[in-house]
Amino acid sequence: MKKSFYGLLTICIVFFFVTVSAYAATDPLPSWNDGPSKQAVIGFVVAVTTHGSPDFMAKEERIATFDSDGTLMSEQPVYFQFLYEIYRVRILASKYPAWQTLQPFKAAMEGDLAYLAHSASPGELDLAAGTEVDRSDEETRADTAAWAAASRHPRFNRPITDLVYQPMLELLNYLRANGFKTYVVTGTGIEFIRAWAEKTYGVPPEMIVGSSIKARYQMRDDIGSVIYEPARNFICNGDDKPTAIHYMIGRRPIAAFGNSDSDIPMLQYATSGKGRRLGLLVHHTDDVREWAYDRGSRVGDLDKGFDEAARRGWVVVDMKKDWKVIFPFEQRNSR
Amino acid sequence: MKKSFYGLLTICIVFFFVTVSAYAATDPLPSWNDGPSKQAVIGFVVAVTTHGSPDFMAKEERIATFDSDGTLMSEQPVYFQFLYEIYRVRILASKYPAWQTLQPFKAAMEGDLAYLAHSASPGELDLAAGTEVDRSDEETRADTAAWAAASRHPRFNRPITDLVYQPMLELLNYLRANGFKTYVVTGTGIEFIRAWAEKTYGVPPEMIVGSSIKARYQMRDDIGSVIYEPARNFICNGDDKPTAIHYMIGRRPIAAFGNSDSDIPMLQYATSGKGRRLGLLVHHTDDVREWAYDRGSRVGDLDKGFDEAARRGWVVVDMKKDWKVIFPFEQRNSR
Repeated sequence: MKKSFYGLLTICIVFFFVTVSAYAATDPLPSWNDGPSKQAVIGFVVAVTTHGSPDFMAKEERIATFDSDGTLMSEQPVYFQFLYEIYRVRILASKYPAWQTLQPFKAAMEGDLAYLAHSASPGELDLAAGTEVDRSDEETRADTAAWAAASRHPRFNRPITDLVYQPMLELLNYLRANGFKTYVVTGTGIEFIRAWAEKTYGVPPEMIVGSSIKARYQMRDDIGSVIYEPARNFICNGDDKPTAIHYMIGRRPIAAFGNSDSDIPMLQYATSGKGRRLGLLVHHTDDVREWAYDRGSRVGDLDKGFDEAARRGWVVVDMKKDWKVIFPFEQRNSR
Repeated sequence: MKKSFYGLLTICIVFFFVTVSAYAATDPLPSWNDGPSKQAVIGFVVAVTTHGSPDFMAKEERIATFDSDGTLMSEQPVYFQFLYEIYRVRILASKYPAWQTLQPFKAAMEGDLAYLAHSASPGELDLAAGTEVDRSDEETRADTAAWAAASRHPRFNRPITDLVYQPMLELLNYLRANGFKTYVVTGTGIEFIRAWAEKTYGVPPEMIVGSSIKARYQMRDDIGSVIYEPARNFICNGDDKPTAIHYMIGRRPIAAFGNSDSDIPMLQYATSGKGRRLGLLVHHTDDVREWAYDRGSRVGDLDKGFDEAARRGWVVVDMKKDWKVIFPFEQRNSR
């Protein structure tokens, strides 16, 4: 008895120390350089998840909302939905001769990225409304997923879903591991983003809040189907982000993440609630590894966000300084 | 060593048998009488959750959608949101003299339940749009929750949330225990139902899809708030239920539950997808314990649903025959 007792005790003690040291050695955000941004994020998560902490938040309150374009993934030279729409417009062009002179269809046909970048979310939605008409949500999703896997980004010559930010993937996982529900709240059309967001971000379709085109229910060959119609339904930008969060989530987030002035209302909404809050803006400062832009950018304009960040204590991530790697493929290449 | 080994083995064996027999003895739907309805429900859940079953569905596909009024909770003599609106209209009546002659406000002021029942979801939404204007979502939710706790149903003289169906609560729990995400998809306004659905159904605000009034984002005293406006936004009934599921959930459910013709499209949508599916209609047949109604009812009209159920193999629950108890308070009373 004695012998087995001490044997067991030894195993327990060894197991305890191995576990503790493994835990201590685990950095939840390994692609983030040490510094105030990383400290602010980890400090927030520890404060709201530690029982007995004055800032503790019950699990059901742990809602975090993320913008997509420019916050979780690159948005240059245009939002990636435009690349899909260019592909769709070119397939359908012969059926719609009017597109030869009708914007933004003409620009899509000609691959005029400068024009498309300027037309932003309304342009995306108009193209989707024109090219998805009469397709079911399921047909569109399957086609988009296949396109995304085969896509090539004009600068990086890789699938567009490779241009996701490794530090933000770590942040999504870190929050989820701490009981957060992580939502994407985006100007991108849900018709497009839901096709790849589950695989790329770990965010399932039911946790994507976004812009959308009109849809109607219809029986086709005795199968109940949701079919797209040629009109915009909702554009999820600016003041409409908190409104969309109300309709689709129904709780004020305790943390929100964006990168442009159009995310200011969502961050205000999250951070002006009671208790400890986190607002974070991703500032694009790295024109070598990614892009550098802020005030006056055609895509992802960030201007008033700096003042609001200073006033409300939001974290402003400097991509160049704060992030060891930007894209997951950098890590794979360096191994 | 030997002695301790056999001791441990004995404990393990005893533990194993206790667990197995406890498991076998646990009926997941104790308030359901044995019969075809209960068998169909359990047969479906076992089939889609058993690894290696030809009908197995991955966890992320296990989406179940439930109508609320008449499916999870009573809807007589009127949808319960009307009872809250009567309370609101009477508080605000002196501010809005026009309501004296304007329907449905006049009916609400007079407590004319027959008129309100007839005006159904549009009436509910118009009242909410009139009485919630300029309140924030959070103010409305707190007020509604307090009202619900103090409410008295005209027939049962109990809080309206007591009139939930015990067999359906068991079904919600059974599905969740088997990895399903359980959503409510309802004609009721989200402004109303989210105030009590988490406590009553175990369904959090972010899993409620429903009708809604317009809302806008606004800073009030430096707090970002979602404020209600005096107009309908969306009525979630009939063909608009699958459409709302597309916008808010983004996956075709594999199981859907309703009680009236307005749920037919949602059940068609769920059950005409590929693989094993479950559609279920609750038929109100018990005028002693609850109410008996179907064809031609002002509330919860069920007519074409019978034909569709026969054609598509949906379960039709006979409340009188299939359910041992209707309301949780019957159980508490009989103990």
